[in-house]
Amino acid sequence: MSELRWNPVRREWVIMATHRMDRTLHPPRDHCPLCPTVPGGFETEIPRPDFEVAVFENRFPSLHLQPPPPDVAGTLLSPIAPAEGVCEVVVYTPEHEGSLATLPFKRVVQLIYVWQERYREISLRKGIRYILIFENRGAAVGVTLTHPHGQIYAFPFVPPVPALELSSARAYREETGRCLFCDLLAEERADGRRIIMESKGWVAFVPFAARYSFEVHLYSRRCLASLPELRDSEVEELAKMLQKIVGGYDRLFEAPFPYLMILHQAPVQCGGGEERGHLHFEFYPPLRDRDKLKYLAGCEQGAGTFINDAAPEEKAAQLRAALGTNADG
Amino acid sequence: MSELRWNPVRREWVIMATHRMDRTLHPPRDHCPLCPTVPGGFETEIPRPDFEVAVFENRFPSLHLQPPPPDVAGTLLSPIAPAEGVCEVVVYTPEHEGSLATLPFKRVVQLIYVWQERYREISLRKGIRYILIFENRGAAVGVTLTHPHGQIYAFPFVPPVPALELSSARAYREETGRCLFCDLLAEERADGRRIIMESKGWVAFVPFAARYSFEVHLYSRRCLASLPELRDSEVEELAKMLQKIVGGYDRLFEAPFPYLMILHQAPVQCGGGEERGHLHFEFYPPLRDRDKLKYLAGCEQGAGTFINDAAPEEKAAQLRAALGTNADG
Repeated sequence: MSELRWNPVRREWVIMATHRMDRTLHPPRDHCPLCPTVPGGFETEIPRPDFEVAVFENRFPSLHLQPPPPDVAGTLLSPIAPAEGVCEVVVYTPEHEGSLATLPFKRVVQLIYVWQERYREISLRKGIRYILIFENRGAAVGVTLTHPHGQIYAFPFVPPVPALELSSARAYREETGRCLFCDLLAEERADGRRIIMESKGWVAFVPFAARYSFEVHLYSRRCLASLPELRDSEVEELAKMLQKIVGGYDRLFEAPFPYLMILHQAPVQCGGGEERGHLHFEFYPPLRDRDKLKYLAGCEQGAGTFINDAAPEEKAAQLRAALGTNADG
Repeated sequence: MSELRWNPVRREWVIMATHRMDRTLHPPRDHCPLCPTVPGGFETEIPRPDFEVAVFENRFPSLHLQPPPPDVAGTLLSPIAPAEGVCEVVVYTPEHEGSLATLPFKRVVQLIYVWQERYREISLRKGIRYILIFENRGAAVGVTLTHPHGQIYAFPFVPPVPALELSSARAYREETGRCLFCDLLAEERADGRRIIMESKGWVAFVPFAARYSFEVHLYSRRCLASLPELRDSEVEELAKMLQKIVGGYDRLFEAPFPYLMILHQAPVQCGGGEERGHLHFEFYPPLRDRDKLKYLAGCEQGAGTFINDAAPEEKAAQLRAALGTNADG
């Protein structure tokens, strides 16, 4: 079964994907499906002996280019839709070990160009409304393949989190005529205590109302809607910032630091005047301290309200120390 | 630091509670803070040699009856508010081992009367807008004390999840004149495939658009706003249903089954005509199969869209088998 089901209470589509129950979990080192295929050896997802950055369709996709017809009939209250969309895997390197921090700088630049290219290409497909580029890193967030990689999901709807962000931005623009994200960024820079790093094109900070102890947001300084608008200099700076953030994370506890890295951009096929948002990355790390995990329990999932055990100002200082930056960036 | 910080992008309050970083984690059996205090022994949170159901203020509260003044100043865009509210611990039994399923029936009835009493009492306090009764069960959801217990959080605002539910119900009532939850329940009963148990006053089912493989919702049949409206017969049936659901969960994999159990009720101090919702419990279990956890990763947290690896119809059948009920309840 692969279909979208509507929950009229939470007003959300839920993706039903029963074929995913049996997906590959923690394969042994010599059966990594994201490594290159050595001639005569285990056939991985990438039928080549070498590559730089590889992109392919997820073998256990939640969303499909040609979705099967829904399994059951929906109702007026609880409709069903085909699970249309795209699920791609982006393999950062042929090397089995490593991270955004340890990749050669040029490879990270190349990865960003790949993101741009995929964003452009997928945007043109019929029925796609939102493209989410993300990376899940670490067993603590459920990652089953350790080979450095990220993912791209393209949805036939604007999902709840970006929809909420865009609706806030829309209301703010109607009220003030300005971009909510630009104004938030200006406030963070004016305050300064939560800034962890700045470059000409980018600012990284622990947000004022962080949900996670070590949450970091990375905003483009220019009010850009999506990746293809980046100048080459901004791409290179972005590569540096991403490498530094992940490197800083890994130095915090001298161990690979688990996180979710999310890229929020404009919806695609925007209708007339739809709010386009402001390109930014959000890092959600589940560790609230060394060996202490943050769980999303009753308060977070039943109320939707997060409890953060740490002061964002202190965590920003700790991250600046790990990054070797000072309060001025 | 203990304060509320506003995130204008997600339009949500985040609770900052830095004193919680050092809360008690997994104490040894003879230092359980939820056991009765044996004369001359370890002093627990309950200074008595015996009790039936005990309620006390959380020693590491996220919200306070008398909150400290906020630590930093907010801004127009990112305001701060005192962390006002209530965090109580509800200890189900003096016995260190057990669960809702194994408690004597009369104790569960008593527990529901305690919930009713706490709801009534806390509703009267100034500044409280929403009361969340919940239970986190199992190490998989981050529980640090295994002694059977639940919690009560009272917020000075209506949190995002109940706010969304109530706003959906409001829109539905404006459109149709009917209760969204009553109509959903009627649809589930008419379909029948996802019903796992029914009694005169209650219906338990796996929802059509479940986020979790073994998600179960338990709705009151009468359109009730909150616990104090329950008749005694409905309280007794509720006790039975809760015990059966948890017992069924535990039989699924012959092991204590981790879950979040959430009770959604009406907001308190409702203003004129505010939607009051429909009393119901939601169980979110993190296990998607034996030894397989569901993680909230990039898609769930970055997009807000859940992927369910299981068909709700199949999981309902599996739960009916574990409960020893049939499709007709």
